Amino acid sequence: QPSSGSHQTLKEPSKPQRVMVIGGDGYCGWATALHLSNKGYEVAIVDSLVRRLFDHQLGIDSLTPIHSIHNRLRCWKSLTGKTIELYIGDICDFEFLSETFKLFEPDAVVHFGEQRSAPYSMIDRSRAVYTQQNNVTGTLNVLFAIKEFREQCHLVKLGTMGEYGTPNIDIEEGYITITHNGRTDTLPYPKQASSFYHLSKVHDSNNIAFTCKAWGIRATDLNQGVVYGVRTDETEMHEELCNRFDYDGVFGTALNRFCVQAAVGHPLTVYGKGGQTRAFLDIRDTVQCVELAIANPAQPGEFRVFNQFTEQFSINDLATLVTKAGEKLGLNVQSISVPNPRVEAEEHYYNPKHTKLVELGLKPHILSDSLLDSLLNFAIKYKDRVDTKQIMPSVSWRKIGVKTRTIAA
Amino acid sequence: QPSSGSHQTLKEPSKPQRVMVIGGDGYCGWATALHLSNKGYEVAIVDSLVRRLFDHQLGIDSLTPIHSIHNRLRCWKSLTGKTIELYIGDICDFEFLSETFKLFEPDAVVHFGEQRSAPYSMIDRSRAVYTQQNNVTGTLNVLFAIKEFREQCHLVKLGTMGEYGTPNIDIEEGYITITHNGRTDTLPYPKQASSFYHLSKVHDSNNIAFTCKAWGIRATDLNQGVVYGVRTDETEMHEELCNRFDYDGVFGTALNRFCVQAAVGHPLTVYGKGGQTRAFLDIRDTVQCVELAIANPAQPGEFRVFNQFTEQFSINDLATLVTKAGEKLGLNVQSISVPNPRVEAEEHYYNPKHTKLVELGLKPHILSDSLLDSLLNFAIKYKDRVDTKQIMPSVSWRKIGVKTRTIAA
Ligand SMILES: NC(=O)c1ccc[n+]([C@@H]2O[C@H](COP(=O)([O-])OP(=O)(O)OC[C@H]3O[C@@H](n4cnc5c(N)ncnc54)[C@H](O)[C@@H]3O)[C@@H](O)[C@H]2O)c1
Ligand SMILES: NC(=O)c1ccc[n+]([C@@H]2O[C@H](COP(=O)([O-])OP(=O)(O)OC[C@H]3O[C@@H](n4cnc5c(N)ncnc54)[C@H](O)[C@@H]3O)[C@@H](O)[C@H]2O)c1
Repeated sequence: QPSSGSHQTLKEPSKPQRVMVIGGDGYCGWATALHLSNKGYEVAIVDSLVRRLFDHQLGIDSLTPIHSIHNRLRCWKSLTGKTIELYIGDICDFEFLSETFKLFEPDAVVHFGEQRSAPYSMIDRSRAVYTQQNNVTGTLNVLFAIKEFREQCHLVKLGTMGEYGTPNIDIEEGYITITHNGRTDTLPYPKQASSFYHLSKVHDSNNIAFTCKAWGIRATDLNQGVVYGVRTDETEMHEELCNRFDYDGVFGTALNRFCVQAAVGHPLTVYGKGGQTRAFLDIRDTVQCVELAIANPAQPGEFRVFNQFTEQFSINDLATLVTKAGEKLGLNVQSISVPNPRVEAEEHYYNPKHTKLVELGLKPHILSDSLLDSLLNFAIKYKDRVDTKQIMPSVSWRKIGVKTRTIAA
Repeated sequence: QPSSGSHQTLKEPSKPQRVMVIGGDGYCGWATALHLSNKGYEVAIVDSLVRRLFDHQLGIDSLTPIHSIHNRLRCWKSLTGKTIELYIGDICDFEFLSETFKLFEPDAVVHFGEQRSAPYSMIDRSRAVYTQQNNVTGTLNVLFAIKEFREQCHLVKLGTMGEYGTPNIDIEEGYITITHNGRTDTLPYPKQASSFYHLSKVHDSNNIAFTCKAWGIRATDLNQGVVYGVRTDETEMHEELCNRFDYDGVFGTALNRFCVQAAVGHPLTVYGKGGQTRAFLDIRDTVQCVELAIANPAQPGEFRVFNQFTEQFSINDLATLVTKAGEKLGLNVQSISVPNPRVEAEEHYYNPKHTKLVELGLKPHILSDSLLDSLLNFAIKYKDRVDTKQIMPSVSWRKIGVKTRTIAA
């Protein structure tokens, strides 16, 4: 039983101390857990490790070698003297989640623990349903656990910029003020998600907003852009702490895949026209943003939404940047267009706002720098581990069917 | 194997013939299945009968005596010579749903088959999660079944006016044109649902909209108001066809409960201030609306939204109307205010549009007439069956917890 003295922070919500990182064995969660531990927070990781199972099932692997969560945490302890508690289990199992809440007594929960790949959710019917059940039920359970066991606990929930889609007007941070037939109201920003994964995040946002209103939950929804990069201050302290780097057609994002393609001399695979524009940020900014959200919590009953990204690029922009950076490193980089496996606009207006985290103090990294020191350099360093069969897209938005598919590379 | 000749309607989508009614043993579904059968459609009912199980579990019952689905269908056949096919099973079981699609080959699916009570979804955590899983997964399965087995099939999906909440601007039918910072787009109308049930409908709408875009599904989302009344032309043909009438605190709507309260001399229980305003329609208009939607199907890829209601009233308006109608029938009706178990605005602007179904030909019934010939008269006829312990609200939006509750009357 931890001494209740350490929980006085509940009365000073501006400085929560005990942070539960759900999904803390994953890409963003691992970097965040170490960062918060380093900054003096008491951290617990909650994770079912199901993401490692997906990799086995799909026959894919991180470019960087990653260690078991148990060894990662032992290494962290021996380097820094800091303990990160570990709870292995599925948050869809409410009995498990209740126990973790009772034992750890979090002041903030950072919830990364979802199936997070759009292509994964479009492989077949059972993965589509799994994605929505896993994500929606997990988040509902977290909301109930907070209501029942830690009413003052601040929920920091990872959403995605993909929830908004590509409307033909500016994208605001969560809400939009609409004047219509002479009356005005501020309403949730209309969402147009375009995969079962992105839709699961929209469902989550709607569920969380309701519980803030009905139960007084305090929540921050971080609509995150596409995260890139491997390095954070903590993960580079030891190779056993190294973060994952996905480059396959299911979990790898366009930018990661371009870097790997550049490193192995494969042409960059641009989907369709390449005018698709998205929001991006460095993993070092993810951990900063999450810390800023925790340090400046939402008020009871507040459903706060931040657009968490630093720059925006089209796919063609990315190809150009990777080509240029590759040249600096002596690589000769080509691009090709491949048929777009997704259903998405390939040319569109895109102007999402992202001032709230900057106002809280975010100091952004810049992609053109990161390419050289946290992306291409890793791709080159580990290029012997590249499995080129994983590079091409393997999932089609239109061809998804009801039969369970085995999509080994 | 039905002759494929009868399926030429697929090429003339304006007159689909084979209609699958999911949830056809329920209140709206039963009236709709009989109505469509009467009008010459080939009808199949798909239902797990889980709603009858909820009644057993909660210790509640329909005011009107209802017969087994098997006897209902035998009675219909003997009265009219018409066969309604019956498939008993859970649409969350995709193997079952696939079989029904392959056997019946629907041209239209009317999907009523969800857990449809807001209070039910707020009883405890497990019912909240059940409601979202049952409704979201069921609808996902229907979408996959259409894509895989009946690409041209028109999905007519029951949503609710409650998806919109009570914004301070006019409510449009599904979409709103927004001009923002000098640019204009037409976007999904922002939703603010206020129970896990209503949220499940928002999730469904978002999922369906995506599949219309990605797969070319043709869908009509009927955002239905609160349905009242027992009588339809078909159900009154024989007492074995009688529809259900819910008046309990979980499945009964305010209007039904007021009628039963008036009939047994219990004061009408107004939640809070009674300024809550909602949209309403007669069950005879529900069956008309669904037929109009089927007869005028959405185009491939179109996600069409109709607001399906005819009049709007505040709770206080309803109490006044029931009091007046009761007086005509010789009843002395009182009202009391009870603490509002829900979290909702008790005074608010409310102006939802509902012209699209009228344009298609809807001829509305009027509540003040229906009270006398389809509501109060039934409440009085069956008043000896009233269980007064079921009349008061038993579920609180704020007190919902994680322990499984047995809320017997
Ligand atoms: N990586 C990105 O570019 C990006 C962009 C926007 C948003 N996000 C969001 O950030 C979060 C983390 O993304 P990531 O890239 O680190 O994903 P990841 O797959 O690397 O990590 C997710 C972790 O959650 C765990 N998990 C999943 N379901 C769980 C459950 N039911 N119970 C317990 N643990 C569970 C997995 O085992 C995994 O370790 C996700 O919610 C994702 O949607 C990521
Ligand atoms: N009654 C209203 O006032 C009202 C208002 C607005 C919208 N609606 C919507 O209309 C639809 C029908 O409402 P109702 O009042 O007739 O409800 P109901 O409970 O009387 O009927 C629903 C039927 O669906 C069946 N069902 C539920 N889950 C199922 C599953 N997974 N597989 C197979 N069958 C399943 C139930 O057994 C039941 O017979 C619902 O979707 C509801 O949300 C109703």
